Formats: sequence, C-alpha cells, structure tokens
Amino acid sequence: MRRTSRQIFVGNVPVGGGAPVSIQSMTNVPTRDADAVLGQISRLAAAGCQIIRVAVDAVEDAPAMKRICEASPLPVVADVQFSLASGLAALEAGAAAIRINPGLCGNGDELKQVADAVLRHHAAIRVGANSGSIKPARIAEKIAAGRSGEEALAEALSDAALAQCEALERLGVHSIKAAIKASDVGITVAANRRFAARCDHPLHLGVTEAGTPAMGIVKSAIGIGALLLDGIGDTIRVSLTADPVEEIYAARKILSGCGIRRERPEIISCPTCGRTGIDLPGLVARVEALIEELRSSGRGVELDRVAVMGCPVNGPGEARGADLGIAGSRNRELVIFEKGKVLGAYPFEQGWKHFRELLLEHAVPSQK
Amino acid sequence: MRRTSRQIFVGNVPVGGGAPVSIQSMTNVPTRDADAVLGQISRLAAAGCQIIRVAVDAVEDAPAMKRICEASPLPVVADVQFSLASGLAALEAGAAAIRINPGLCGNGDELKQVADAVLRHHAAIRVGANSGSIKPARIAEKIAAGRSGEEALAEALSDAALAQCEALERLGVHSIKAAIKASDVGITVAANRRFAARCDHPLHLGVTEAGTPAMGIVKSAIGIGALLLDGIGDTIRVSLTADPVEEIYAARKILSGCGIRRERPEIISCPTCGRTGIDLPGLVARVEALIEELRSSGRGVELDRVAVMGCPVNGPGEARGADLGIAGSRNRELVIFEKGKVLGAYPFEQGWKHFRELLLEHAVPSQK
Repeated sequence: MRRTSRQIFVGNVPVGGGAPVSIQSMTNVPTRDADAVLGQISRLAAAGCQIIRVAVDAVEDAPAMKRICEASPLPVVADVQFSLASGLAALEAGAAAIRINPGLCGNGDELKQVADAVLRHHAAIRVGANSGSIKPARIAEKIAAGRSGEEALAEALSDAALAQCEALERLGVHSIKAAIKASDVGITVAANRRFAARCDHPLHLGVTEAGTPAMGIVKSAIGIGALLLDGIGDTIRVSLTADPVEEIYAARKILSGCGIRRERPEIISCPTCGRTGIDLPGLVARVEALIEELRSSGRGVELDRVAVMGCPVNGPGEARGADLGIAGSRNRELVIFEKGKVLGAYPFEQGWKHFRELLLEHAVPSQK
Repeated sequence: MRRTSRQIFVGNVPVGGGAPVSIQSMTNVPTRDADAVLGQISRLAAAGCQIIRVAVDAVEDAPAMKRICEASPLPVVADVQFSLASGLAALEAGAAAIRINPGLCGNGDELKQVADAVLRHHAAIRVGANSGSIKPARIAEKIAAGRSGEEALAEALSDAALAQCEALERLGVHSIKAAIKASDVGITVAANRRFAARCDHPLHLGVTEAGTPAMGIVKSAIGIGALLLDGIGDTIRVSLTADPVEEIYAARKILSGCGIRRERPEIISCPTCGRTGIDLPGLVARVEALIEELRSSGRGVELDRVAVMGCPVNGPGEARGADLGIAGSRNRELVIFEKGKVLGAYPFEQGWKHFRELLLEHAVPSQK
C-alpha cells in the first residue's frame, strides 16, 4: 500500500499524490559554465532523469542559472548550501524549486525570505535534512532520554525536517517535499519511516555519500528499495561518486527491482549451478545485446519478462511468469517456452535463431 | 531489533539464535568433477563464503560428494531438485545439510525418509520454497479468497515452507532453516516477513533468478537488505548469473551496506557536484587502492570509516562520523580531518602523502 502524500509540482513534474516515482540527479560541472551544465542535463534527460539539481553557491552564479533554467529540458532545483542570497537569486533566475536545509537558514527571518521568494515565483521547496544539518545538542538530548546513537540521529533528522516543513507551512508555503538522508542506511530508513508517519509531505529518497558505484548502488538499493517496498517515496536520487548518468541507470534499476517501473522486458536469469550444461552468462549477454540493439534503433519489446535459464528444472517451472523463455539442457540443446508452456527443444544455434525470431515478433516502436 | 530465531548448525557454522549472518553460495561446475568443485570451494572460501551448496541430481554423484564433503573447508549442503535418492546418498556421503523443496517430496512418506536420514547423520535440513514449488491450486484458492496475485503467491510460499517445517518437526527434526524466494522482490520480502512472524526457524535469504550481475545485485540488495534492516535473516545468498565468487563480493557489500558486518574501513564518498574542484573519483580510487594493497599484503586498517569528499561543505560536517577524512577544496587543496576535526589544508600531493601516512598508522595484521 503506497503512502498517501500530497501532490506538489517541481516545474511540470508532479511529485507525490500518486504520481509515478520520478528520478533525479545533480550536475557536477561548475554552475557558471552554463553550456557544460546544459550538455550534462541533456545527457541525463536522455538517460531518464526527470528533475535536475544544480548547485548555487554565490549570487554570481545567477546569470548562468538564468540561461540554464531557460534552456533546460528538465525542471531545475537550485541547491543552496552556503549562501541564502544565491538561492534567492536562483529563484529570480527561474529555478523551479530551491533546496535548503534546516542547518542553513533555521526557521526564523531567513526562512521567511525564502518562503516569500518561493511564493512570489510559484516555486517549490525541498527541505533537505542530512546528518550535517543536525545540532549535536539535539542528539545529546535524545541520547539522554534513552535513545541509542542511531535512534537519536534518525529521530533528530526526522524532527528537524518536520519542524522546517511546519515553519514553512506557517509562512504559507505548501509546495514542500522533504529529503532525509544519512550515510548510514538503517538510519536513513528509520528517519524516513518516522517522517512518513507524521505528515503528508512527499518524500525525496536517497542515501547520502553512498560512495563509489559498486558500494553506492548497493547502499542506495537497500535504503531506497526498503522504503519503496513499504510504499514510501515519491522521487529518488541515487548518489554516486561517478558520472551522474550512472546515477540514472542505477535509479532505473532500483525502480525496476522494486517492481515500480519495470524495465521492459525484465530479464530473469538463474545463477548457474552444477546442472548448467551451457554458457549461461554468454546466452544472457546475447539476449541483452539483442534488446539493446532494438533500443538503440528506437524500438522496444512488448513483453514484460524474458527468462534465460541454465537448465530445464528452473525453466518452465520457476519462470512460469515469463512471457518468453529459453533454457539450456545438459546436452547443449535449447528449450524454448512461452508463458510456462514448452514450445520445443532445439540444437543450440537453431534454438537461438528461433528464440530471436519470437522475440523480434514483439518488437514495437518505443514510446519515450 | 533482530528477530529471535532458534540456532541450528550447518556443519560447524551456527545459523540463527544471534549468530553472525553467514554468507553462502553454490558451486556451478559439474558435481561429478570433484576436483573442479573443490577448487571452486577454495576460491569461494577465500572470498568469504561460509557455507557451500552443491547440486546432486543422481545417486551417481555420491562418490564425488564423498570426496567433496571430506576435503571441503566449508560445510556442504546437498541441493536436491530431481531425485530424493540422490539426496539420501549425499547425506550418506557426509553432507552437512540437505536442501529440499515442498514441491519435491511433499509431507508424507518421502519426507519421512529424508527426516530419518537427517537424524541418523546429525545433519540439518533447508526447506527451500520458491515459486516453482507451489501448486497453482493453492494460489487460486487465495485469489478466490480475495488476495491479489502477489499476495496470494507470497502467502502460498510462506505457508508451503511453514507446512513442511511443521511436518519435519513432527518427524523429530529440529535443525531446520527455511528459504523462501521469488524472482519478484516485493513477494520475496512479504513472504519472508509472514514466515518470520509465525515461527522461530532461522531464515536463509535470497532473491531467486536475480539475473545478471548489474541487475541481480540491485534486486538482491533491495530484497535481502529490506529484510536484514527489519532484523530478519540468518544466512544469505546472492544469486547471480556469474562466477559464484561475485556472489560473495555482492553478499559482503549487502551486509556492509546494512551496517551488519561493515567492510573495514567503510569508505564514505560524496557524489560530485558543481562545487567539486578535484578529481574525486580518482581520489577515491587512490584510497581504495591503498586499502586493497594493504589487504593483499595481509594487513587491515583499524578504522571504521574513512571519508573522501569533494568539497569542505560535505567534509568535516556530513562526515563527522568518519575516523579519518579527506576533502578537496576549490583551489585543489586537500583538507584532512579526523573525527570531525580539521587537521589542516595542504597542496594536493602533499595532502595526499600526509593522509596516506595517517592511514598507514592504523594498519594492523588482519584477522581472518
């Protein structure tokens, strides 16, 4: 059951309230180099990015932000860490949203300036709490009240985000989404669950400083995935120390893995075992290459699941949910099956050719 | 809070009852080639595998199983899919456990044969339910009772596993662990939660047919990770269509990502952004290479977390939990910090040298 959150818009992208979970990233070239930023945004959009965040650190970034916001195919969120003035300038420049954190501007006069600018420009606000935005005193209080260090941090993060959301509401701002991130996955999940149970603001999910691609994808998949499986989360960003396009691929895999937005067709393959009589990784690679070839020629495959299995045990039986499947047999034959029904067994290359034809029968012009 | 499960032993490895979560894999060379199987087990053990599963499909596999069980550094679980007789022969040959599924031998006479053999050999049983072992009629019943297709499958999987565990208990077997796997992550998580709430048998976690490494790691991280974060799970296997050693690396990353068994030191790094003035992926790679170099010379680093950050914003603040950290600044300097305290800023190469020395001060002979 998906959490019921209120719907806001970041530019033309709906977030929350039943809208599809959207994918975000952040540019990592200097903001003042508007051409480089726009080039990166194009590549990200082509990969599937739907909302883009750009760092603004100084009011001098404003002219570049203006060009970026005008030319970007995606709504731009101005990321403010150092200077509130630069955030206000970014809203003036056309940013669809501004990202602030409770540590930057508190809940007083500075927040009122942000709220007024956001209302004037019909923009949205992302309240982004992370471990760096919590006052150590808050954590100490919670520990004194009997919480473990992790519980204290999770509660303090959630409370800080909620307090800033409430302060913004009192200032008349309702287009608010929140992001609560820690580099510890368990703390991230606990803090988001706590927040989700206490209000209806849409949530942006992510694990902060997830690390290098190999480890970062795993940490993000656990944290973002655990929350999405619980029905929590309206937009996601996978943080990786890598080309941001990798973040989009990882985000798509997480959404697909959670069954939220399946990559079509999803390829199901078994781990090989002592029963495997064929080169299964090689066969899977052939299937992936075939689908990739179709994609790069602007076509998709109208099938939900394609199974590639090592042996007939796990073939038609375990993969009965697959629309089309292929399984090796001990004597290097290929068994082809469709929705759990075996169509036949063929010598390897003949079987591959037949499977390829069956798959191509489902090729369609792809929809963007 | 971790689920309280009963403790069993698979060979000398405790599973459940507060034992550390163990890592498993399965050999994928023909079982009759005992040398090849043993070679693979050695490589898997060196990578961190603690329990190994080997397919037995025919009684003719028994002599090879005998050699494998005698020489294996890891306890061997015999995987039975086709022939119950081969499983009984594997127990005779010295397997520490046998893996059966509710679809193979039901809960009647055949199960009694398994139970008697397990008791005679002081072995354990893994009840492994997957989507292939459920009778379609069971699912139809649940759907008729108002469940969705996914709920029906999750409940049927959990119920089938539990029924077989209960049947085994009635036959006097208590060393039982269960594995409930589907290729759909949400169904896997729901089925395991249901089972976990109804009994105290330890759980082996995994997502079946997770697929190629790229997608399989993501699906496994979500499914296994979501359950581990809930305190459910006593031993894990990541299924990948790849060299099984890759499964061990992935399993280690998942345990580390959940904070259960952190790779030491854990490397925290930020995604780069417009503020990054240095080649952060390059710097992270240097840090990883340094730690890998120590590992391959039999040393470890006595630090829990090392942070490698792109800019001073996310440096000492967000990474205050890091024992040692390094952050780039816009003018290509490196800022070094220890437990949130800045030690100083240095020209890039000088800073790297200083950081390297500080890290090496914590190098210790590693414990296996």
